[in-house]
Amino acid sequence: MAKKKKKTTPRPPRIKTAAAKSRDKKTIAGIEAMAGSVVKSSLAVRDPHVDIPLRTVTNTRFNKKRRMLEMGSNTQRRNLFNLGQAKKFMQTMLLAKGCRELVGADKTLSLRGMYYMSLHTIEGTKEKTFDDQGESDTILEDLEVALDSAREELHVFAKKRGTMVGNITIVDNGDEIDCRRMGTGGYAIPSICEPDVIQFKECEADFVLHVEKDTVWSRFNEDRFWEEHNCILTEGSGQPPRGVRRLLHRLHHELKLPVYCLLDCDPWGHYIYSVIKQGSINLAFESQRMAVPDAKFMGIRAEDYERCDLSDDVRIDLNDRDITRAKQIMNYPWFKDKRLWQREIKRLLANGFKMEVESLITKDISYVTETYVPERLAARDFLD
Amino acid sequence: MAKKKKKTTPRPPRIKTAAAKSRDKKTIAGIEAMAGSVVKSSLAVRDPHVDIPLRTVTNTRFNKKRRMLEMGSNTQRRNLFNLGQAKKFMQTMLLAKGCRELVGADKTLSLRGMYYMSLHTIEGTKEKTFDDQGESDTILEDLEVALDSAREELHVFAKKRGTMVGNITIVDNGDEIDCRRMGTGGYAIPSICEPDVIQFKECEADFVLHVEKDTVWSRFNEDRFWEEHNCILTEGSGQPPRGVRRLLHRLHHELKLPVYCLLDCDPWGHYIYSVIKQGSINLAFESQRMAVPDAKFMGIRAEDYERCDLSDDVRIDLNDRDITRAKQIMNYPWFKDKRLWQREIKRLLANGFKMEVESLITKDISYVTETYVPERLAARDFLD
Repeated sequence: MAKKKKKTTPRPPRIKTAAAKSRDKKTIAGIEAMAGSVVKSSLAVRDPHVDIPLRTVTNTRFNKKRRMLEMGSNTQRRNLFNLGQAKKFMQTMLLAKGCRELVGADKTLSLRGMYYMSLHTIEGTKEKTFDDQGESDTILEDLEVALDSAREELHVFAKKRGTMVGNITIVDNGDEIDCRRMGTGGYAIPSICEPDVIQFKECEADFVLHVEKDTVWSRFNEDRFWEEHNCILTEGSGQPPRGVRRLLHRLHHELKLPVYCLLDCDPWGHYIYSVIKQGSINLAFESQRMAVPDAKFMGIRAEDYERCDLSDDVRIDLNDRDITRAKQIMNYPWFKDKRLWQREIKRLLANGFKMEVESLITKDISYVTETYVPERLAARDFLD
Repeated sequence: MAKKKKKTTPRPPRIKTAAAKSRDKKTIAGIEAMAGSVVKSSLAVRDPHVDIPLRTVTNTRFNKKRRMLEMGSNTQRRNLFNLGQAKKFMQTMLLAKGCRELVGADKTLSLRGMYYMSLHTIEGTKEKTFDDQGESDTILEDLEVALDSAREELHVFAKKRGTMVGNITIVDNGDEIDCRRMGTGGYAIPSICEPDVIQFKECEADFVLHVEKDTVWSRFNEDRFWEEHNCILTEGSGQPPRGVRRLLHRLHHELKLPVYCLLDCDPWGHYIYSVIKQGSINLAFESQRMAVPDAKFMGIRAEDYERCDLSDDVRIDLNDRDITRAKQIMNYPWFKDKRLWQREIKRLLANGFKMEVESLITKDISYVTETYVPERLAARDFLD
């Protein structure tokens, strides 16, 4: 085609929704309250401090009723006049200030960007405010819990991964995106999937099929699985990032769509399922925004080796790490009293090998889209 | 919103274009010619063989006139009746057969999928056809050069990475995608960007800005850089995969768009630029489909530390590996006679530190989009 020169119709400027405004107002209020208390202590000649809820295994509990991981109420006090805490105290203030600026400017920044934004050499010394990005990432998580404001509410985003297609139209930052017309590439799921950025517009889908890898996703998209089975197809490139988890959560809770997961038959696949379903230990404070306690595990199952009559070639021997990990997962409180999960992991261990979703290709290129998943859906044969 | 239940309008079935048909015909003819020669040798009781062009540094040369890496004419003969070559010969046949099936079925498969498709235990032995996916990936590259058919033409795809937004409308597998209306997420660039899958429809953009990382891309997208500067914005999550490189090549050659690269000031950033510009050694046979010899390097430049008045904090010390790598790159034939590049790398080495694009955030959140890039564009200040 010849290149066309024409004036671009500019997009209408993004109108900040009432929800976004109120969200930002709450975040700013939180940051200012924290700063206010430090100022107050200082003026009263008292040691300023902030209380940070503990993000540790011991302060994480599984809420059986809500079926998700939650953070307990233990906190750690971070004082300015304590040699072991002063640096972290300073870092907490620096990053809180950075977030305040971001929210004020109505901009977002990556984790790496936040690190740079708050990085400087302390006057008169050679000491930097942060040794590396790891330090600032950790403090940002502290801030999330201390302020009860998710990272997304602090206007900070992470590397994005994950793609979506299917019978849904969404609005992303004012742009209407028809996920039925996304070709072979798909819609790249952003890192921030909050309701003020992403709205659901029209959806006829009956369920969400979430697969582990983008290569498997491409197989399903090429076979137009989502069209034939009226669903939404997502992938998270391994352990799904927060954006994908948040989107799955919203699709499930707001649109009442069941979420089925197609993952590898190995401890890694089981852990991905566990995180989607009840949250992760490190982000336990985020479970209520991200967990999908009703998510189902469709496979690959240890029994599929016989059930699908697979050949020896698909077997990948479990190594010591896999075995340790499988046993750990088996003992998670949320798997412990699930008969079928206990049987599944025992069978995985008895098999002595793991299997990937791709191994179904040894049957036929499209066995997974034309036989495996349709059969499981028809029989409603899932692990819960 | 309430979930809407309505009948989905099915997408029209993809109509195979004449270009796609002729492409597949050529691929099939190539595979069948290879198989035919093996059959012919066998029937004549001669040792069957295939000749595989060598993908080595010594068989790679820099074509100064075309300004890209090209593969030389050296080949290696792979015989069936040679103990050291028999396995590879068999693997070559197996994968060629697999590709023939894929093209025949009009389906595509991932590299991992191809491995599984061709994996089996040889009857009467415990020997598998492939020890791991690495073996099949290498043979697939052999097949590409032996058949003179790109991986995409063999219907094989890799993990996809990379995103695009901007003033262009494309058609992907029959779906029209307006890259001006892709919200915060963007269009996920597929692994196969051949003209029979992706067509360009309407484009007002004046150039392509390619950035290294998705987090930097998000900054540019959020600041609507592509709208203000009338361009297309792409990212390749580090070293761009083939899909992204192919797309850049096509945007440049078919739409005559200049390609500007914004990468880190380190040997890794320089190498990304080198690959985009003149191809990679390993994929030298692909250069004519992927290289953009006119691509320009916009930054980050070693002199930016002073020019942009950056603070000490952005300095990341070069390690021994960086230094070795920088010297290697300086001696690449395509950098060797470029005065400005020699100066650039010398200055990087003299500085003793590298800098990331994100380091510009220490100036201001939007310094990179509002000052740095606009200034370079206005001054046409690039390395070539």
